[in-house]
Parts: sequence; structure tokens; C-alpha cells
Amino acid sequence: MLKEAIYHRPKDAFAYAYDERTLHIRLRTKKDDVDAVYLLFGDPYVWDEEKNEWLFFKQPMQKSGTDRLFDYWFIAVQPPYRRLRYGFELHDEENVLVYTEKGFYDKAPTDDTAYYFCFPFLNRIDVFDAPSWVKDTVWYQIFPERFANGNPKLNPPNTLPWGSVEPTTTSFFGGDFEGIIDHLDYLVELGINGIYFTPIFKAPSNHKYDTIDYFEIDPQFGDKQTFKRLVEECHKKGIRVMLDAVFNHSGYYFAPFQDVLKNGEKSRYKDWFHIREFPLQAEPIPNYDTFAFVPEMPKLNTENPEVKQYLLDVATYWIREFDIDGWRLDVANEVDHQFWREFRQAVKAIKPDVYILGEIWHDAMPWLRGDQFDAVMNYPFTNGALNYFAKGHVRASEFANTIIHVWHNYPQNVNEVAFNLLGSHDTPRILTECGEQKEKVKLMFTFQLSFSGSPCIYYGDEIGLTGGKDPLCRKCMVWEKEKQDRDLFAHVQTLISLRKQYRALRFGEFHVLETNDETNHIAYVKTYDDETIVCVLNNGETALEWTVPFSLADKTVTNLWTNEQMTEQTMTIEPYGFRVLLVQATSAE
Amino acid sequence: MLKEAIYHRPKDAFAYAYDERTLHIRLRTKKDDVDAVYLLFGDPYVWDEEKNEWLFFKQPMQKSGTDRLFDYWFIAVQPPYRRLRYGFELHDEENVLVYTEKGFYDKAPTDDTAYYFCFPFLNRIDVFDAPSWVKDTVWYQIFPERFANGNPKLNPPNTLPWGSVEPTTTSFFGGDFEGIIDHLDYLVELGINGIYFTPIFKAPSNHKYDTIDYFEIDPQFGDKQTFKRLVEECHKKGIRVMLDAVFNHSGYYFAPFQDVLKNGEKSRYKDWFHIREFPLQAEPIPNYDTFAFVPEMPKLNTENPEVKQYLLDVATYWIREFDIDGWRLDVANEVDHQFWREFRQAVKAIKPDVYILGEIWHDAMPWLRGDQFDAVMNYPFTNGALNYFAKGHVRASEFANTIIHVWHNYPQNVNEVAFNLLGSHDTPRILTECGEQKEKVKLMFTFQLSFSGSPCIYYGDEIGLTGGKDPLCRKCMVWEKEKQDRDLFAHVQTLISLRKQYRALRFGEFHVLETNDETNHIAYVKTYDDETIVCVLNNGETALEWTVPFSLADKTVTNLWTNEQMTEQTMTIEPYGFRVLLVQATSAE
Repeated sequence: MLKEAIYHRPKDAFAYAYDERTLHIRLRTKKDDVDAVYLLFGDPYVWDEEKNEWLFFKQPMQKSGTDRLFDYWFIAVQPPYRRLRYGFELHDEENVLVYTEKGFYDKAPTDDTAYYFCFPFLNRIDVFDAPSWVKDTVWYQIFPERFANGNPKLNPPNTLPWGSVEPTTTSFFGGDFEGIIDHLDYLVELGINGIYFTPIFKAPSNHKYDTIDYFEIDPQFGDKQTFKRLVEECHKKGIRVMLDAVFNHSGYYFAPFQDVLKNGEKSRYKDWFHIREFPLQAEPIPNYDTFAFVPEMPKLNTENPEVKQYLLDVATYWIREFDIDGWRLDVANEVDHQFWREFRQAVKAIKPDVYILGEIWHDAMPWLRGDQFDAVMNYPFTNGALNYFAKGHVRASEFANTIIHVWHNYPQNVNEVAFNLLGSHDTPRILTECGEQKEKVKLMFTFQLSFSGSPCIYYGDEIGLTGGKDPLCRKCMVWEKEKQDRDLFAHVQTLISLRKQYRALRFGEFHVLETNDETNHIAYVKTYDDETIVCVLNNGETALEWTVPFSLADKTVTNLWTNEQMTEQTMTIEPYGFRVLLVQATSAE
Repeated sequence: MLKEAIYHRPKDAFAYAYDERTLHIRLRTKKDDVDAVYLLFGDPYVWDEEKNEWLFFKQPMQKSGTDRLFDYWFIAVQPPYRRLRYGFELHDEENVLVYTEKGFYDKAPTDDTAYYFCFPFLNRIDVFDAPSWVKDTVWYQIFPERFANGNPKLNPPNTLPWGSVEPTTTSFFGGDFEGIIDHLDYLVELGINGIYFTPIFKAPSNHKYDTIDYFEIDPQFGDKQTFKRLVEECHKKGIRVMLDAVFNHSGYYFAPFQDVLKNGEKSRYKDWFHIREFPLQAEPIPNYDTFAFVPEMPKLNTENPEVKQYLLDVATYWIREFDIDGWRLDVANEVDHQFWREFRQAVKAIKPDVYILGEIWHDAMPWLRGDQFDAVMNYPFTNGALNYFAKGHVRASEFANTIIHVWHNYPQNVNEVAFNLLGSHDTPRILTECGEQKEKVKLMFTFQLSFSGSPCIYYGDEIGLTGGKDPLCRKCMVWEKEKQDRDLFAHVQTLISLRKQYRALRFGEFHVLETNDETNHIAYVKTYDDETIVCVLNNGETALEWTVPFSLADKTVTNLWTNEQMTEQTMTIEPYGFRVLLVQATSAE
């Protein structure tokens, strides 16, 4: 057994409290190197007095997945006194190896518990505790300027006719809250039950990521009364509302920054930003910290207690006054951890089940330890799906490796509320990424909506909007039914409806049944309690003869798309086709 | 190159802010598998417009150590805009491998920064920031009941004559604050500049880990006025004072617990503890949570806001009123992280350079991320030293492996303030562990006091106190000079004095020069700026012929013990002997 590949370190993704009674323990080993792993575990203080040794138990771990280099092993334990010391006993055909915090042994040491890994106490308050409704939510992301223009009176100057041209970085089309309210029934028809709005606060740009006033609605969208009505209408329809908090940086016209521009070192707001020298200059590179090097987006000094208080007031104001259900945090990774800890305390104090979603594109474990965010935008998931389905950069086995790798990067309770998106206002449209091959988009949606987490649909992807990189991916929504791809809409609608019906799809365990790099298909199973659903995605240009990998003799297999029962062991799946199959034990008569 | 052995994950011990401008990046590879590693790094937003690719730099990393299975690589970088994307280029004789967050590549990808690891922003407030005085401190641990009896009037009932018998779990000898004040000059003579006191608050036992009242001094030690005087006298002599906070559990006679015992479910304090059922029962196992299964130590419910406020009041009271300099946190690992975060905020708010030291015996990374503790009691260091010097369980190379492994488990700034002890009130006396072979104890002290961190001497170890496991390791201090081992005292005194003189000893980089499992010796070097000190420890029962591994032609080598200059390339080191050598470049004339 390759010792160098064996990895475990509490806590993070390897030993964590799943809930207030259950610990999850994982181990990583070299791929195909170990035949069986057992957890050796016991209470740190329970001694076998007779034998004068530590009293421990032994339970087999399950292989929970495999990626390119590694196998992962899993077990859930409920220590009666909420304390655990533990190690691992690994077997291959010839050898047994015991792995502890102190290293490797041939035999489990029993003269002391100090050899072993320790989960010292399962304190409830430390349990990662995202709102439970998130697991049951399908999100819809709206870029308000481009969703629907319901009140032309609010149109900003130079508003272009809706959808008349491709958007540029400076164009306005007049989308507003009235427009969104007018089309809530469309969203209900689609089946979504959460909306993530990109910023709505007063800001000069069309994207509003350059805030002027965090306490004001941008007048092009409407007023506070209309926003209140929007939230109320959403809530009536069972739709939760998430806003975008741009706290890493303000906009150029944010009053405190204007004060610094005007008064320089004498400004009472000079410590609200990170200014390297006075007077402020934007060229060639701003002499103050910004988002990237964008002079219009000066970085806020969130370590300054005044700034912190101001932003926490913003965060609580919109919850308290408008009853919003979540905050998406822009450029969340560049803001200090301490700020986010206090942010969490502040918002959860007034609405305990508010959802905190960070924009982090890379590995985000340090923000997902229970003290900061509930989730991050899961771009590693996005890229995995794009590389396989849309771009064809990887074949089926490598796609499976990526998904399994991403899954094992975080605790399960983190994965259950991960914000799994296929695209956003920051990425090209998925139909465009798929070379306008709709069937590939369908496969992507099928995968996204059958996988765990909290999936999000970027407005218009469900009816076939196209567009390259920002600003082209921010086209006006198309409302003429004849111009919408209703077949794609129906596909997404069906997937959402199945997802609502089957917990296995929402938060069932995910196991890869098979991948084939020649046909390029993947088959996987999602299971929850007695619910078992098998998905087969044929991401290949030829028809696939797929054989059910278990006997149909004692099982009923139903194609959830057609509601037909399968009678043959083998089926033909068309190029870029798929099957979603419910597998039930045939009741014995 | 063995991909399965290659490991890096931000942040923790692998990518962390060393100070407000400097990031430390580490990489782990299989031992002796990689010839060179380069860091590829750049600003996430700096694009080479001409080549249309990411602009990155390349710098060699240094091999910072080797343990049983792995090599570790290190580099410090100061990103101008405090943001970093980075990857690793690994070389062996034949191949080049690029390692990124997204996996391995033959060549560094440049079309996107998203492949790379990310340290998104170095925010000052997130920097692990322990008080700087801790690096310059040599601690002395006092168990107050056993250090010195200065005021016999305070003797509790049945006090035994000082040192008359071996201590039992229930014996009292009458140690008190007056006794400590009387002997501060002894401590000054030894050279220490910090005292860690095990608990002094009102409690029935001799060890006082069963608190009755956190706001009262135990009368057997003195009163608040005397304690104030003790702190003042210490401060006058440049000695800092750390108290023991027993916040995981109270004592049985703590008033709120007595109230619950008396009033059961009707007690207003019932939620101050973790009670599984009423009425409370201690047998066979307490039906309320306790430390281990000790009925006299009911676990406090630190998630209860009332309890939290009470304990934070305690923590700040002793700082505010008595100006103490540190808190050692008993059973710190079983208390919730959220409590410790608030504890840090509370105590640092009133005394920013207070030292927070957790009692954690195992791997403690989750408490050392800057938001909770400054340090933990470094028992992995202790056990490494005991196994090599005292017990002979491991030979020199394995000892080096352990020390290097422990070092790379934590960030450097954490290591610099680690509480490195050889023994405590919870372990057998080191002289006893060494089979009463004093020379081995000398070697242990030599290692401890030449290694980085904040070393602590358990009272009496410096004059040769003996004793097995608790309670035998808690004997009365011996004050008759003729009964003290003055030779051992002088040894420790010299080491402390050298440590004060040479920064290389206090916080220099540690590198193993050589180990030899036959002779069982280890030679290592500590370097800081232009200071270089080489230590050779002959942990073998035969004399060692040791050859200086560099030419003396252009170097002056001074034996710091004798102040003699070395003239021969080879020296003889007696069995269990040692050398501490200052190496200086001979100035060219």
C-alpha cells in the first residue's frame, strides 16, 4: 500500500460533524491500491480495565468514490459521548497497515489513545449549518437590466428597444422590477423556487457592481415599495429571494470615495479604503487598492470598524425591512475572513435561515467551515460540466474524476447546499459553449438537475439564449413564445419537476456506475433511503446500446421521462440522448 | 515523480500570511523524488497583453526539511498587490511536471489563471498575530501548592510538612503566593521571564482544576492583594504571568452546578451544563457531560450566552484588574470553536498582546488559524524528545523526522510561538523518564532551549526533581541548595543565557545537518540573518568523533559552552555529551 498517498487530517473535508450527533470520517488512498479499510474508534476516555488497554471498535468503511489518482473511503459514526479517537486499518491482499496521527503501525497500538486522530468534542454550535430549504431549491439568476421591461417610465436615458441589438458594456434596455413581477408566473411554470438577483442598488452601470448607495434601489429598477411588492409576490409563490452584496469594493461615485477624491488626506473617509498614496491617481495603475485594476471599483477597508458597521447595517437592513432570504457575496474571497465571520453572526441573528453564498471560483474550504459561508458558487463543478459536455475537452472517465474530486473536496453537508451553476453573467452562454448544439445543453441540464446541491439556471438558458463572453451573455430575455425554444424549456421543466418529486435526485448519494471513453457515456446512480434513480447520459455522436447492469428479474425499472416500464435488459440511447430511470424492487407476492 | 505524494492546499500550513506583506508557500513531495521545485506566480489580474497570456514569474523553492516519507519545499513571496495565483514546477532528472489546483500539466497553462492555486488577498486582520514577546520568553510552570510555602497561616487543614512524603491525589503541603514571591530571585537567577501558574482560583482539590469560584483566589494561596503584588513583582523583574483558565468544566461545588443538583429541572442554571436526564446521577457513568467521566467536573455549556458572558467576564477581569499576560486554556479542544473566537476578541480588545495558549495534545491546526489561539502546548514535540532522549524508543533519524514533521504541520509564525515543553503536571518527571540519567536530561534541555518556539520548564526539573505519573510528578520543590542538583541548574541557566544572547537559537531556521542511527547522534544548525549556530547532541553511550562538515579555513568556530575557539576539524564528544558552536566567517584582512 502506498503510504505517501494515504491522507487524513481532521477537520475540514476529512472529519467533520454532519449534524449534532453524527461525525463523517473520510480517508484517501491511492487508486486501486487498498482492498478494504476499517475505522478503529472509541471514546478517548473509555479504558478496558481488565486488559488495561484502550477499548475500541472496528467498522468497515465504504468506498465513496474514485478520481484520477485516489480512492476515497467514508463512514458515519455517532459517538455516544460526542468524543472520538480513531485510526484506520487498511488491507490489501497481503498486508495490514494501521494509520494514525502518529504514523503507520503493523498493529493497532492500545497502550495509549494519543496515537490516534482526535475529534475532541462535537459541539452543536460548530456544526456547519446551512438553511435546510436550500437543498430543495432550484435557483434562477436574473440580471435585472435584461429580464423584462415592465415600466418604460423608468427607462434610463438612451434606453434601447428591448432586444434590438447585441448588448455592449454600456447599453441599457430598461429591465425593471415591474417586468419581473409580470413574469413570475413564467418562473412558477418553469418550477424554480429561488431567484438570485445581480445587484439592484443605486449604481451607474448596467450591471450595478459599482454601487453608489447601498441603501437605495437603483431608480431604473423601481422604488423600495415595488421591491417590497416583488419580494412579497415571490414569497406568495414559494420563491425565495437572494440579493447581491458587493462589499469588496464600492463604486467610484460612492459618497465616501468621492469625499476622499475631493479632500484627499483630510477626508474623514480616507481609512475607508486602502490608499497607498495621495493624491489619488487612476493611471497607469490606481494608487489605491481596487477590484482587479479597475479605478471605478475602489476596495473597501473592511477592517475599519466604521466600514464594517456600515456594511453590516446594509446587510441587516435589507433582511429586516424587505425580508430577503439570502445574500450572494461578490468577490467574497478578497474580503477578510474576520469580516465574514461577523457578517454571518449579524445576518443569522435576525434571520437564522438566511442563505450566505460566496462568489469564490477556486477551492473554498477556508470559507466553508461553518463560521462564514453556507456555500460558494461551485465553478469547479461548472467547469467540469463544460469541459465534458460543451467543449469536449475531456472524455467521460475524466469528467467522473472531476466530479468525484470536487465532491470529496468539501464535507457532505457543504456539498448538499453547493450553488451548482452551469453559467452566469460572468461566463458565455451554455448554448454558445455547446456550439449551439441543443442536445448537449439538455445533457448539461440533466446532469445539473439530477446532481446534489442547489442548482441555478441563468435566465434565458432554459429557452436557448446565446451569447459569448460578457457583455454578450447578458442579452435581453426573449418573451415572444415563438422565439423561445419551448422544447428546451419543457426539458428543464420536466427535470425540475422530477427533482421536486424525488429526494434521491435532490440529495441522494452519487455513485458512478460506469464511464466509457469510447462511447463517451456516463451512467450514475443517485440513492436516498429506498429511492434509487439511475441516469445514463450518452455524450457521444453515435447511438449507445446500454445494458442495465443488474437483473430486471426482481426489479421494476421505469423511464421517468415517458413513465414506461422497461422490459428489455438492453436499450438504445440516441446520440446525445439520456435516460432517467427509477429502479424499484419488485414486491414479492 | 510520484503524483500521489504531491500535496498543497491553501491555507493552513501550506499557504499562509507570515506577516502583513509576506506569504509563505510550501509544497510536499515524496522523499528524494524531486530534484528542484519552482514557484510559478503572479497577480491574478496582470495579463501579458502582447502575448495574450497570464504574466507569471518563476522562483526556485528551498527544501526546508525531510521526514520519514516526504520532502518539504518552501518560499516566501511579497505580492505587490497582496494577491497571488501560483503553481509549482517540479523537476527530476528526466521530467518536468506542473502542479496546479486543477491537476498536473506538462507545461504551465497560460490561457487562464483559473488553473492555479489562489491566495486571493492578504488582509492584515487575518494574519496570525501572536504577541511578539512570546518568541523571547522562557517559561517556568509553577504548580502553586508545591512550589513554596511562604505563609504557614494559610495552610489548609491537614497540611503535611513540606516535602515530608510523596504526594498523593489528596495531600496538601501549603504552597502559596508568598512562597513564590520569596523565590522570584531564584527564577531570575535561572533566567526565565514568564511563569505559567496552574489554577489559582477557589477549588477544593490540591490541583484546583475543579473550580468553585472563578472570581476568587483560593484562600490557601493568599488573597487578591497578594496576587496583585505577585504580578507586580514579576513584572518588575521582567517576568510575564500566565494563568490557567478551566472553562471546559466547572467544579462540583461551583454554585450554578450546586443549584442544579438541588433544584433539578427547576434550576435556572440547568442550561449551564449538558444534562442528559434528571435527576442528576454520577453512577455508573454521570448522566450529564463531564470532563472524561469525572462526576466532579461537569462540562460547561459554552454555547449558552449566559455562560459565555460569565466566562468572558472572568477572562477579562483577571487581565483588567491584575494585568496578567496570558491565559492557558485547560481541555481547550473540547470547548466549541465559536466560544474561543469570542474569547480571543474579548481578551485582545483589552490587552492586545495577551498570549492565548490552548491545552491540545494532538494536531491542533483548526485552533491555530489566527481566529482562536496563539499557541498550543506542543506535546508532539514533547513526545518526540522523550522517545529519542529519554526512552530510547527511536534513533536519531526518526527523531529528526518527527521534529521536521511537527514543524511542517503548522505555519512558521505558529511554530515561532509554540509552547514547547518537556514535561508538565500531567506527565512523569523528565529525570524519571530518563531512568535518572542526568546527562540525558541535559541533552533534552539543550535541544529544547536551542529550538524555536516558547520553551517551558516544569518547576524543579532544573534541579533534578523526580517522580512518576501524576500525583508523583507534583512533589514539593526542594529549596535546600545541597539537595538541589546545582550542576543541572547551571546547565539550564547557561542554555537560557545563550538563548537570550542569540536570536538564531530563539527563532532561527532549523536544519538537520546529519543524523546517525549507529552513533545515535544528531547535528543541526540554527540560522538567523548572519548568525549561525551548530548543535551536536551525542545521544549515544560511546564517545563520538565528530568532524565539522565544512572547512575551518575561512570560518571561526567557537564552543559557546567554554568560549574556546576550535582549531581542529574533528572533536571528541563524550557519551551523552553535546556541543553548541557559533560559526562565524573569518573576516578577510
